[in-house]
Amino acid sequence: MKAEIIAIGTEILLGEIIDTNSAYIAKQLPELGIDLMYKSVVGDNRGRIVETFRRGWERSDLIIVTGGLGPTDDDMTREGIAEMLGEEPHVDPELEKHLRGFFAGRGYPMPESNLKQAWLIPSARTLLNPRGTAPGWWVERDGHVIVTMPGVPPEMERMWANEVRPELERRSTSEVLVTRTIKTLGIGEGTVDEMAKP
Amino acid sequence: MKAEIIAIGTEILLGEIIDTNSAYIAKQLPELGIDLMYKSVVGDNRGRIVETFRRGWERSDLIIVTGGLGPTDDDMTREGIAEMLGEEPHVDPELEKHLRGFFAGRGYPMPESNLKQAWLIPSARTLLNPRGTAPGWWVERDGHVIVTMPGVPPEMERMWANEVRPELERRSTSEVLVTRTIKTLGIGEGTVDEMAKP
Repeated sequence: MKAEIIAIGTEILLGEIIDTNSAYIAKQLPELGIDLMYKSVVGDNRGRIVETFRRGWERSDLIIVTGGLGPTDDDMTREGIAEMLGEEPHVDPELEKHLRGFFAGRGYPMPESNLKQAWLIPSARTLLNPRGTAPGWWVERDGHVIVTMPGVPPEMERMWANEVRPELERRSTSEVLVTRTIKTLGIGEGTVDEMAKP
Repeated sequence: MKAEIIAIGTEILLGEIIDTNSAYIAKQLPELGIDLMYKSVVGDNRGRIVETFRRGWERSDLIIVTGGLGPTDDDMTREGIAEMLGEEPHVDPELEKHLRGFFAGRGYPMPESNLKQAWLIPSARTLLNPRGTAPGWWVERDGHVIVTMPGVPPEMERMWANEVRPELERRSTSEVLVTRTIKTLGIGEGTVDEMAKP
């Protein structure tokens, strides 16, 4: 299974935040038998997000997206996937109830902008987020999967461990990639390469 | 000027090394008036490296590459650029002399695999690396620039500060991107967005 990781967000693109999510996920893919081909970061720009999703959809079986699930106008991951797939988002009543409950429980009114966090598209099912307001999506169509998770690392890690990784494990083949680290001292990389080549 | 950053290396792709170079560079681009559009990571695979360079060359004025400049077979940044541009690499006598001097000074024979670190292509000029054996390239053709620097952070940072940043400053327009951080407490992101929008 060929995969790529896409991190969304201008703060990550501009280096104001270091993208640790991609490394967290990437490290676990070889043992799941998943071949990671690319990682990309794209800012909060709808055209470039859609372009990046479209390319991923063409070249990879699995796209793992983090970020862009917030309630504000510059969070465009859901919009980007809907546009790429030509599917219309709708408010899911169950998710809306959950979201309104989240705000009620904290004694705040829910800003209407948050409502898009209750969106689904026909090919998506919900990935629960017990730590925040942004649920993820598991989107599957035509043999391709695109998974979205929040950019906030504790929310992402929980969603990954509870929902995404177990599902990927179920689909995993038995072929995994094993790496071995050999430490060397003093001699240059070129010399080690010549010695190790056979 | 539209730019993108490409980090090369399977260790970075698989999260064994966190790519701090891209953030280091990205942070400095807004003040140089350079619009960063994408960051990508690609493993040590020649086909995918060439594909990524080719796309960058089409969509960006400036591509900043880190990594893949080592002496071993899995270091393919030079090969990738030469292939993308259809230019033939040759050993530059000046660089070869410098490289052999580097090894002689340490009392090691130079492995022949290191010789490709003395390569140039017609559109490239050398970026000196006082901290290691891998010089960088400043490649310019048809209004596009592609810069390569080593992946080892101290080598990259020195080359960036001494050679790349000053050249980009000379070409910089006066338009820069200024950001301001406003800290808020207690209320949700959606509410802040609604308040700040106008």
